[in-house]
Amino acid sequence: MDIAMIEAAAGRAQGHIRRTPLLSSPRLDAISGRRVMVKCECLQHTGSFKARGGWAAVSALPEETRSNGVVAFSSGNHAQGVARAAQMHGVPAVIIMPSTAPVAKIEGTKALGAEVVLYDRLKDDRDAIGAALSESRGLTLIKPFDDPQVIAGQGTCGLEIAEQAADEGVTQADVVVCCGGGGLSAGIALALEARAPGLRVRTAEPQGFDDTARSLAVGSRVRNEGPEAGLCDAILTPMPGALTFPILHRLAGPGLVVTDDEVLRAMALAFAHLKVVSEPGGAVALAAALFHAQAFEGDAVIVTISGGNVDPGVFLRALEG
Amino acid sequence: MDIAMIEAAAGRAQGHIRRTPLLSSPRLDAISGRRVMVKCECLQHTGSFKARGGWAAVSALPEETRSNGVVAFSSGNHAQGVARAAQMHGVPAVIIMPSTAPVAKIEGTKALGAEVVLYDRLKDDRDAIGAALSESRGLTLIKPFDDPQVIAGQGTCGLEIAEQAADEGVTQADVVVCCGGGGLSAGIALALEARAPGLRVRTAEPQGFDDTARSLAVGSRVRNEGPEAGLCDAILTPMPGALTFPILHRLAGPGLVVTDDEVLRAMALAFAHLKVVSEPGGAVALAAALFHAQAFEGDAVIVTISGGNVDPGVFLRALEG
Repeated sequence: MDIAMIEAAAGRAQGHIRRTPLLSSPRLDAISGRRVMVKCECLQHTGSFKARGGWAAVSALPEETRSNGVVAFSSGNHAQGVARAAQMHGVPAVIIMPSTAPVAKIEGTKALGAEVVLYDRLKDDRDAIGAALSESRGLTLIKPFDDPQVIAGQGTCGLEIAEQAADEGVTQADVVVCCGGGGLSAGIALALEARAPGLRVRTAEPQGFDDTARSLAVGSRVRNEGPEAGLCDAILTPMPGALTFPILHRLAGPGLVVTDDEVLRAMALAFAHLKVVSEPGGAVALAAALFHAQAFEGDAVIVTISGGNVDPGVFLRALEG
Repeated sequence: MDIAMIEAAAGRAQGHIRRTPLLSSPRLDAISGRRVMVKCECLQHTGSFKARGGWAAVSALPEETRSNGVVAFSSGNHAQGVARAAQMHGVPAVIIMPSTAPVAKIEGTKALGAEVVLYDRLKDDRDAIGAALSESRGLTLIKPFDDPQVIAGQGTCGLEIAEQAADEGVTQADVVVCCGGGGLSAGIALALEARAPGLRVRTAEPQGFDDTARSLAVGSRVRNEGPEAGLCDAILTPMPGALTFPILHRLAGPGLVVTDDEVLRAMALAFAHLKVVSEPGGAVALAAALFHAQAFEGDAVIVTISGGNVDPGVFLRALEG
């Protein structure tokens, strides 16, 4: 992966992926004690940044391979990103989702024309399901983060951050990124290294799922030991990716960890002051910027809201705070 | 008012007013049976399009007048638009608000540095309060809609719609605008007349407050007879403006009227599929496009979400639907 691959992905995405706004509010600045600039990927097609990686991967496939269709494993956001890319390329998509995925994400994936196969996280072997489908139908597997084209696609978000921050006069700042497997974090880090070297990625994760923060601290990949489910469904991966971690190890600052309560408060503040809908996993970076202000230096911080695909019941919990 | 005034307002707004995104979702298209493109003014500074008119009016004042400060009457969105413009010009703002205004709007106005004077809608004479303040302190009154500079400022939203629709290949469509006094509708209509003559404004109002629809039907200004309060607090004006109505009479198509239930459903759909927060008065145009599809022709419709300043309790009502 390099900046040329990211630029190429941005070229293929032209007209198909939104340039999302970088929003701000004086109310959030006051809480953090510095300028807080929020890259709203919840406003991306499909409601999350995953539309970028899905588009990049599907559009990069050779036509003869792509025409057979694609398959993906996902709790929901990658599902929709891949489904949309397949639909718009006119090829089939099969998405293998846990039966516990948020209803909004299952419905969203079906609405994009994908065939959804639900599996039981405790009983079924999703890899076996995927392998069987892939072999019988010649589907290409699009991985959620450990794929060079997917990382390059997520990196297009970093190209936009570099430009939008410069437009705001900001050239030195931490860029806090919601982190599961590290595809968005690594992609943005590569883009910033080339286009805005004064901006530095820092990962944000929920408590109990801080594999990236711990891996960055010790310098090698370590695994989460705790439960497999949690509030922040979108970013609960067991450990950093084999491709993403070396990039983050080289380029990212110390990882940040927030509580579920902080996540819910950040969702309520994004509702009140930015007028955007964030899902729990999409609000961890904003939570870090607002409630861990002492972890930052400088007079500005940039954060991603990485997605907004949240069921109403969870959103109500945040608003009722 | 003419296109030159709108272009001048856009020039003064450069760097101070956001170019808001035109969003869409295949799920909304499916409900309406045509492309639905949503101009998200809820993502504007202060959470509504009123930041445009406030900026245009305050920035147009001669320095020696402006330095004394400004005063405005508002249930909340115009309040915040004027307060922000005054704050950023470094001049005082006094905002006279009904004590029944949404808490989010009162707090938002105070946070922008304005002095808020609350009055009792049933007992107090707000005009007398305003006149006394204005005289004693030399404040300039910024009217909410019947002011040429305010209309020109709201018209900057129309310039963006013209460009963004053209970028999407849409040159023939109705543009449904949430309508209270008609400032946004009239401003957009003037901008489209000059820059996108195939786009036509149509006003949207809540049932019981359909003064503009009835006025357009009979060709002269008529008044609402019903209650003074309702769900759509932002757009409950008693009758069309003296300046705005002639513009709408000349340029707008038939007005649209929606129920409160349709408004709440539109808010829930904007949450689910666009990931934006809309207030009731800001969702009437989307409600019209989704639930009165038979009132439109052609394969595309453009709507404004004019604001997102809603108290959590009202938003919960929409999500619990």
